[in-house]
Amino acid sequence: MTYCVGLLLDAGVVLLSDTRTNAGLDNIATYRKMFLFEQPGDRAIGIMTAGSLSITQTVMARLADANEEPDNDRSILRAPTMLQVAELVGATLSDVTSDVKSKMERMSQNATASMIVAGQRKGGPMRMFLIYPEGNFIEATADTPFLQIGEHKYGKPILDRVIEPGTSLGDAEKAVLLSMDSTLRSNLSVGMPLDFAVIEADAFQIGRTRRIEADDEGFARMSAAWSEALRNAFQEIDPI
Amino acid sequence: MTYCVGLLLDAGVVLLSDTRTNAGLDNIATYRKMFLFEQPGDRAIGIMTAGSLSITQTVMARLADANEEPDNDRSILRAPTMLQVAELVGATLSDVTSDVKSKMERMSQNATASMIVAGQRKGGPMRMFLIYPEGNFIEATADTPFLQIGEHKYGKPILDRVIEPGTSLGDAEKAVLLSMDSTLRSNLSVGMPLDFAVIEADAFQIGRTRRIEADDEGFARMSAAWSEALRNAFQEIDPI
Repeated sequence: MTYCVGLLLDAGVVLLSDTRTNAGLDNIATYRKMFLFEQPGDRAIGIMTAGSLSITQTVMARLADANEEPDNDRSILRAPTMLQVAELVGATLSDVTSDVKSKMERMSQNATASMIVAGQRKGGPMRMFLIYPEGNFIEATADTPFLQIGEHKYGKPILDRVIEPGTSLGDAEKAVLLSMDSTLRSNLSVGMPLDFAVIEADAFQIGRTRRIEADDEGFARMSAAWSEALRNAFQEIDPI
Repeated sequence: MTYCVGLLLDAGVVLLSDTRTNAGLDNIATYRKMFLFEQPGDRAIGIMTAGSLSITQTVMARLADANEEPDNDRSILRAPTMLQVAELVGATLSDVTSDVKSKMERMSQNATASMIVAGQRKGGPMRMFLIYPEGNFIEATADTPFLQIGEHKYGKPILDRVIEPGTSLGDAEKAVLLSMDSTLRSNLSVGMPLDFAVIEADAFQIGRTRRIEADDEGFARMSAAWSEALRNAFQEIDPI
């Protein structure tokens, strides 16, 4: 499994993904699931992936190829709007899934993938989309300013409680890391290191990025402090 | 869906279940999912159910019938140990599931159920079991003093952090209610009212029981206080 979360805030887009890929419990590997694209001054785009690695790698490779080919009209670096970026990613995901599906079905197996696409192009607003395996998508809004793919349940309660469009980038970083922390504790198929990125509003370039390794002292300290804070909060609650 | 949680503590067994049953989003009903049996001075047993209502109702009806029939050797009120109670429930669940399955498969459908069985018989320790749809089961231990069935992920982080065998019954009640609160907030298919019960160690009778209705002021206050405490705890955490 995987856990990726994206926030669409007034101040910018905040993205966090894990890196664990597994084919069974005894075949575990680390693969990057966050991909960042920019043309400084014009656009910045982040894509996060969940699902079958054979699908997500092929989609990302096709998108990268299209960026390299000047005449290819499926380049996300040349699409005029974020909506069209989402449509291109969705169409590519749909094509690849369909190819892989026909092979898998011959073996009575199945494979799917989903993606989060977020960013901003000059002249347009910041937008964030969740692309379904079939290629269709939904968009984050002020009512629902976060999107998750993969193992999303353990980390949702904290986001439900603290994230709103006006949340600061500092609080947003804490919130996604704590959301990931709850998921890491409860599900072995989600694992360190983590990839973190911010795209600030109207910056049209990738902002701060960071890889958080398994031995990161700050993350360990925050995780311990959160456990302690939760236990203290629990003690303060009166019984009903 | 459903959410039921049971704690096996030094001080006793604590049980909490929701009551929502749904067949699609537009067909929602309230059914009790917690069933309590006692022979004061000899034994006290609690059973909670999740899954297909057609299966769980039939299992509970067969168990109740067996209790009424003096010669029936499948009565959980006459089984000599809690292990044999778990085996009786497992065998009944396996029989009923198998019956229903053969009908469902003709329509290419499927139905399963699982149960938590907890209690104590005089002369033996308190025990708690999770009965799988196939009738086999696992048991709670000091390392893993809680069991959940149904929609278990949202409510697990709080249990992971605060429950251990030495937890008091008061803290245990708070913990299962907060675990349920997180689940209710995130999943519409889990709903009020709630059924709560305690079986104290070496009491050999059902202890405090309580139905918590949707308009329960104490529960609403605790839920609000917990949200507030979580947000405060969040603010206290330093960024990494």
